[in-house]
Amino acid sequence: MSVPDPSPELLQRAAGVRTAAMALGRCSDEQRRQAVLAMADALERHAAQIVAANQEDLQAAAADGLAVALVARLKLDASKLAAAITGVRQVADLPDPLGVRQLHRELDQGLVLERFSVPLGVLGVIFEARPDAVMQIASLAIRSGNGAILKGGREASRSCVAILAALQQGLAASAVSPDALALLTSREESLALLKLDGLVDLIIPRGSNALVRFIQDNTRIPVLGHADGVCHLYVDRDVNLEQALRIALDAKTQYPAACNAIETLLLHQDAAAAFLTLALPAFERAGVTLRGDAASQALGVLEAADDEDWRTEFSDLLLSVRVVPDLQEALEHIRRYGSRHTDAICTTNDSTAETFLRSVDSAGVYRNCSTRFADGFRYGFGAEVGISTQTLPPRGPVGLEGLVTYRYQLCGDGHIAADYASGLRSFTHRDLPL
Amino acid sequence: MSVPDPSPELLQRAAGVRTAAMALGRCSDEQRRQAVLAMADALERHAAQIVAANQEDLQAAAADGLAVALVARLKLDASKLAAAITGVRQVADLPDPLGVRQLHRELDQGLVLERFSVPLGVLGVIFEARPDAVMQIASLAIRSGNGAILKGGREASRSCVAILAALQQGLAASAVSPDALALLTSREESLALLKLDGLVDLIIPRGSNALVRFIQDNTRIPVLGHADGVCHLYVDRDVNLEQALRIALDAKTQYPAACNAIETLLLHQDAAAAFLTLALPAFERAGVTLRGDAASQALGVLEAADDEDWRTEFSDLLLSVRVVPDLQEALEHIRRYGSRHTDAICTTNDSTAETFLRSVDSAGVYRNCSTRFADGFRYGFGAEVGISTQTLPPRGPVGLEGLVTYRYQLCGDGHIAADYASGLRSFTHRDLPL
Repeated sequence: MSVPDPSPELLQRAAGVRTAAMALGRCSDEQRRQAVLAMADALERHAAQIVAANQEDLQAAAADGLAVALVARLKLDASKLAAAITGVRQVADLPDPLGVRQLHRELDQGLVLERFSVPLGVLGVIFEARPDAVMQIASLAIRSGNGAILKGGREASRSCVAILAALQQGLAASAVSPDALALLTSREESLALLKLDGLVDLIIPRGSNALVRFIQDNTRIPVLGHADGVCHLYVDRDVNLEQALRIALDAKTQYPAACNAIETLLLHQDAAAAFLTLALPAFERAGVTLRGDAASQALGVLEAADDEDWRTEFSDLLLSVRVVPDLQEALEHIRRYGSRHTDAICTTNDSTAETFLRSVDSAGVYRNCSTRFADGFRYGFGAEVGISTQTLPPRGPVGLEGLVTYRYQLCGDGHIAADYASGLRSFTHRDLPL
Repeated sequence: MSVPDPSPELLQRAAGVRTAAMALGRCSDEQRRQAVLAMADALERHAAQIVAANQEDLQAAAADGLAVALVARLKLDASKLAAAITGVRQVADLPDPLGVRQLHRELDQGLVLERFSVPLGVLGVIFEARPDAVMQIASLAIRSGNGAILKGGREASRSCVAILAALQQGLAASAVSPDALALLTSREESLALLKLDGLVDLIIPRGSNALVRFIQDNTRIPVLGHADGVCHLYVDRDVNLEQALRIALDAKTQYPAACNAIETLLLHQDAAAAFLTLALPAFERAGVTLRGDAASQALGVLEAADDEDWRTEFSDLLLSVRVVPDLQEALEHIRRYGSRHTDAICTTNDSTAETFLRSVDSAGVYRNCSTRFADGFRYGFGAEVGISTQTLPPRGPVGLEGLVTYRYQLCGDGHIAADYASGLRSFTHRDLPL
């Protein structure tokens, strides 16, 4: 798969999005809020068309024999659409992420430095089947003053076209240009999007790990990393066994396909037997297949786990189990096989918990609760564009805050650097109220 | 140029740096402060050896016929070394960037989310001749709890080896392992560094634009973007001409090779004649060659500028000049040819200034002062690892703050997601004191 150069048409469209985005970035808080509400109103007015378009996508998917799980994600009926529209209105009411003064410093008399939050510019979003993601991401983009170039999966193409038409009609009734949103429909265009550096400021892939890696390897534009979710739960020696089991079941079974579901259970050797005595029948009732190391097999786990299992995001009712001699071995396992997404410990020992929370280098480190809380809504961010497993911010669940950057503004009265280099003047570096 | 896979030796060394860095990340503020002070002490003790090693590098450079500008950057005599050691001590005294609680929120009774600043992990630093950069970057890395793998230019190899030996001896007398710093000496190793994803968290290139682009194109690791500096000064119609000239001269001549020097002067047509009457003799006295569009040539600029000149970072006493009909045309020129580094306006008109400051999408937007202030020391950051021209944070001059990320910590008492999905419990999302 090679990345084609952008066509003149794509370059022109992207430049149009950029121009619209720059005007959008200068809109007031209230203008952007009203624009998102107008998008929600238009979605409501177009509900019948959107649901009908989705029906066509579903029929085509059935004809193509699309996998059941993908069909479920593709489906957008009236009630799912209504929920998505409610979500768009909630994004309108999130606090403005722009224009926040983060720094205010006198460098010298009459020379004042400020740092303000500003939009990124234009987002490039590449996602799979789910058409509801279009509404969520478009509303987050507009609320945060960013344009967006969206590319949905082929199987959702009719739904995406109908949704985007509604969103743009909503924007047409607002202070924001409809050109701030664009939908790419061909696969070639979506690949060429990766070469739009200078016009697109951030790529947000929402799809398989292979897609994310391909994108990272083929673009100079920063990518909001959203790779594997190999999450761990470590059950300590000092533990409330019933609570640990309840958490393990939730973290594995509440939504096994989610990236924040656990894939591996690490058991302290002194707790393993008692935990598995409780857990084996419970996992069996929940339909979870366990794959264990020799020690956990000796305690009743039926299948054997190999090295590959420790690295695998099963996205299914499968869980690997390993018995470890101590906390250090658990930490080493997480360091070696984890994806730095979210890892949890169940312990009643504060000192052990503290060591775990300080030592695990993941976006989320949890004590005595389910890894499934790693989510923008649950964190109170209102919505999310995705979860980032990369090290640099934005990290973990990414909401509006991850869609802004900042700009330094310096105002003087003829101040020149030579006066400071020569020692004629010197800096005061006095922080002023924010 | 192709990027080789890391050798087993390099993988092992990098893993050693990572292990040391993780322990370093758990050191206290005071331990990291003392470690940096110990590095400064060791540099002082090894001053004679370091200066001697630099002498050897300088002799080899002379034999190889290295360009004068590069030789100047390579040179590290006793007084330059003493200044660098003072800089290391200043880094020790910067406020701790780690452990800052950025978020503190009750998600539900007994379920508390916190977000803390934590180190990135391991930095990969690739830089050209300047051996003093080793000391600055190494001290910033250790102060912020990060390990660093450093690769200096071949022409500075003896100096770098001597400096790193001193830094590691300093660390050996501290709570931080000397393995937190490593120096790569072969070109092949430095390329393979780009493939150490999972072991290196951020690449910081300090070199030519071509080097930065090559790195961006050949690594999955985030790169602290530090590409072209094509900075502009726009002289408005409403302007204090003497002040504007003083700023233009400083911004071009105070250090022409710096990325924050201006490359293009944009003149409002109503101010152009008066400005150039003052400016032409002043630039001539300062040794600056001007290249202008037709309108500025008609006003006395001797050489002609072509389209390529508008995009070029001259890094020399060369300045392109263009007359524009209004502010909008100036903004359009900056948008089209600029590198989003630092751009300035000279104007006495507050409304014009406001439009400029809000419309220019660069890391730095300045009014009535020289672009040469775009610098970590001048901003009061104490030191910098470089200036980033990318859109995502860290943007502009990057100090300690750019070398940290954050981690979410969630502590509960058996909380599971299913209870919220079912409606049995609901989130409070109540912010607590930071």
